[in-house]
Amino acid sequence: MNLYTVLTKKIRNKSAVVGIVGIGYVGNAIADVVSQVGFKIIGFDIDQKKITNFNRRKTSRFFATFDQKLLAKCDIVMVCVPTPVTEEKIPDLTPLNQAATIIAKYISSGALIIIESSISPGTTRKLFQKYFSSKNVFAAHSPERIDIGNKKYSLANTPKIVAGIDEKSLELAHLFYQQFIKRVIPASSLETAELSKILENTFRLVNISLMHEIQRFSEKSGISLWEVIALCTTKPFGFMPHYPGPGVGGHCIPVDPYYLLQEATDINIDLPIVRQALLTNENRADVVVNKILNLCHKNVKNSKVLLIGITYKPDVADIRESAGIKILKKLEQKKIAVFYHDPLIPSFNKFISTPLTDLSRYDLIVIVSNHTTIDYSKIQKQAKLILDTRNVYKTPVKNVILL
Amino acid sequence: MNLYTVLTKKIRNKSAVVGIVGIGYVGNAIADVVSQVGFKIIGFDIDQKKITNFNRRKTSRFFATFDQKLLAKCDIVMVCVPTPVTEEKIPDLTPLNQAATIIAKYISSGALIIIESSISPGTTRKLFQKYFSSKNVFAAHSPERIDIGNKKYSLANTPKIVAGIDEKSLELAHLFYQQFIKRVIPASSLETAELSKILENTFRLVNISLMHEIQRFSEKSGISLWEVIALCTTKPFGFMPHYPGPGVGGHCIPVDPYYLLQEATDINIDLPIVRQALLTNENRADVVVNKILNLCHKNVKNSKVLLIGITYKPDVADIRESAGIKILKKLEQKKIAVFYHDPLIPSFNKFISTPLTDLSRYDLIVIVSNHTTIDYSKIQKQAKLILDTRNVYKTPVKNVILL
Repeated sequence: MNLYTVLTKKIRNKSAVVGIVGIGYVGNAIADVVSQVGFKIIGFDIDQKKITNFNRRKTSRFFATFDQKLLAKCDIVMVCVPTPVTEEKIPDLTPLNQAATIIAKYISSGALIIIESSISPGTTRKLFQKYFSSKNVFAAHSPERIDIGNKKYSLANTPKIVAGIDEKSLELAHLFYQQFIKRVIPASSLETAELSKILENTFRLVNISLMHEIQRFSEKSGISLWEVIALCTTKPFGFMPHYPGPGVGGHCIPVDPYYLLQEATDINIDLPIVRQALLTNENRADVVVNKILNLCHKNVKNSKVLLIGITYKPDVADIRESAGIKILKKLEQKKIAVFYHDPLIPSFNKFISTPLTDLSRYDLIVIVSNHTTIDYSKIQKQAKLILDTRNVYKTPVKNVILL
Repeated sequence: MNLYTVLTKKIRNKSAVVGIVGIGYVGNAIADVVSQVGFKIIGFDIDQKKITNFNRRKTSRFFATFDQKLLAKCDIVMVCVPTPVTEEKIPDLTPLNQAATIIAKYISSGALIIIESSISPGTTRKLFQKYFSSKNVFAAHSPERIDIGNKKYSLANTPKIVAGIDEKSLELAHLFYQQFIKRVIPASSLETAELSKILENTFRLVNISLMHEIQRFSEKSGISLWEVIALCTTKPFGFMPHYPGPGVGGHCIPVDPYYLLQEATDINIDLPIVRQALLTNENRADVVVNKILNLCHKNVKNSKVLLIGITYKPDVADIRESAGIKILKKLEQKKIAVFYHDPLIPSFNKFISTPLTDLSRYDLIVIVSNHTTIDYSKIQKQAKLILDTRNVYKTPVKNVILL
């Protein structure tokens, strides 16, 4: 029986052991769904906290470990490591290369490697050639589309793109995802699958940055962009609303377009709209900070400012690339007495989340991330002045200024 | 009885006479719907062809005229004149100012003027102040959203935004549109209504230009952007497909953003994404022409090129700002023997639509606008080489190259 047939059988009867390399948000979400249909999971990470967290699950089908040798026991290895950018905004493939090095060291013949991380076109193929071409393994790419906090679309009911380095790899990966995802869509090449993920996030960044650009115009014109967007959204075709805010954060939308930009630069293609959208987003924290300074103009140096919500999106305890953190740091650099309140982030560096009491002592309260658990009405009643970057107060209120 | 009450009654019992100034696509579409519910229509234009065309309707509720004095008989005057840009891409308000001058001369007290034309924020107010502040009239803005050729959304079932210069004007315009449109949405100001229309079209231009930008990357990378977009479209949230093409034409999408840009420049705000999207679109014809020249590279000077479809969108006999015309002119400048076929445009300047026969004599056939009535399969069988800017051939075919 050849390796393809063996793995096909193991996938069908759920006896395949699934290794997940990188057990952050994505790895955990996948582990839950994959194990639910009966596969045994081994999680791998270099972070003790993540391993401990993963092992909290009390089921025999789950465990996480530092022990890389156990990769040899995996029939399928899913790579869910982060693909960030450096401080200079250059794609940082260190985690991916480290994972590939280790996997290549221990992987068994006939295993299927699937990269779930968001990467630029060509990356899976290059990784395969560098680390796995001498191994007798299958390789696929299936970009994760997990939207943390989305109540309608989970991993299982979001269609999943899959591509293989060859026909057999594609078939195996397709079969595997079909075990726990309703609709699996094969791509004709690794590169189209890779670009699809980057394009999805580039689309979002460009459109949110467009709103930031137009907001500066509408603010100066005395027009509420929020109302304009609401009006546009009544058009049943040809429009999709995107909203301004304090800047797009997280590990995907503000990051993935840099992967595209780098790849394009490498082949001498300019992407001016993408480049500008990234720049607009990078500058967004400064726009918010300047607005804050303006609102405190009477007495900037003695001003007390409270930021509410410092995560990159509401109701998710994740501060990666978050606008709140950037604004906090920038205000601190300007010697402003800055505080924050976030029920999901009890502390951050030397900062500790301040309780929502005695709000009149702040010269300005800034709604940065719009957690649903916060009592905005109470804040409004007590606050001197509020800068609302998320339009949580829908209708005009006296002491609330919209960004 | 005051003027407001009089007009309210006339709207409710459909005895109000509706003047439509500018009876092009928009004016005609509105006339049809407004007359259907019982209003009497008088169409005004300076173009004999449009008047003749309008008067083809054989109903007593309709007629078009040069006679501006009849504006005095209108209870409601809808302004549907074009708002183009000059060759230098500066908003050209000449038609709007001319219309306003004439309307101001003849309008009766108590009439309601509604501007349907797409204009930048502040324009309705400025026009009113300049031409109508001494008149006893009501004024409103309701940007047209007509999508010619859209089979699902017509004027009547597309929600309509309406704004007034004052409360009474808003109420009258709202009541009027309610007579023939399912859902009418009041805006809080003329400016939000004006910006909503411009933003809808800016959104489209930016997203199509983004696809043009990424297509240059994907082409060089050997990736089919059409497949990538199809993959992205399987994501049930956070994405909306836009497609590359030979350049966006028509009187709205490539034009309206210039209105926004001008207004922003006037108040010293830069809109770099919008600016770049316009530039990308302006350059698009050159991208297509260069591709055509490359495909004819063996013998450019003796090449015969046939363009199929020269309207700005499929199945609509409108060549305003159309990519096909731009490409045709540019190829002619390059001394290429260029022909076109378009069942909707029998002739254009000195050009005459060529029948689709003896196709093998062309070195290259370019699908520019994708009319649904054309037999693309037949063309493919006879053509030497096809450049398909619209992906009409869905699946890869030997002699078809996708732009």
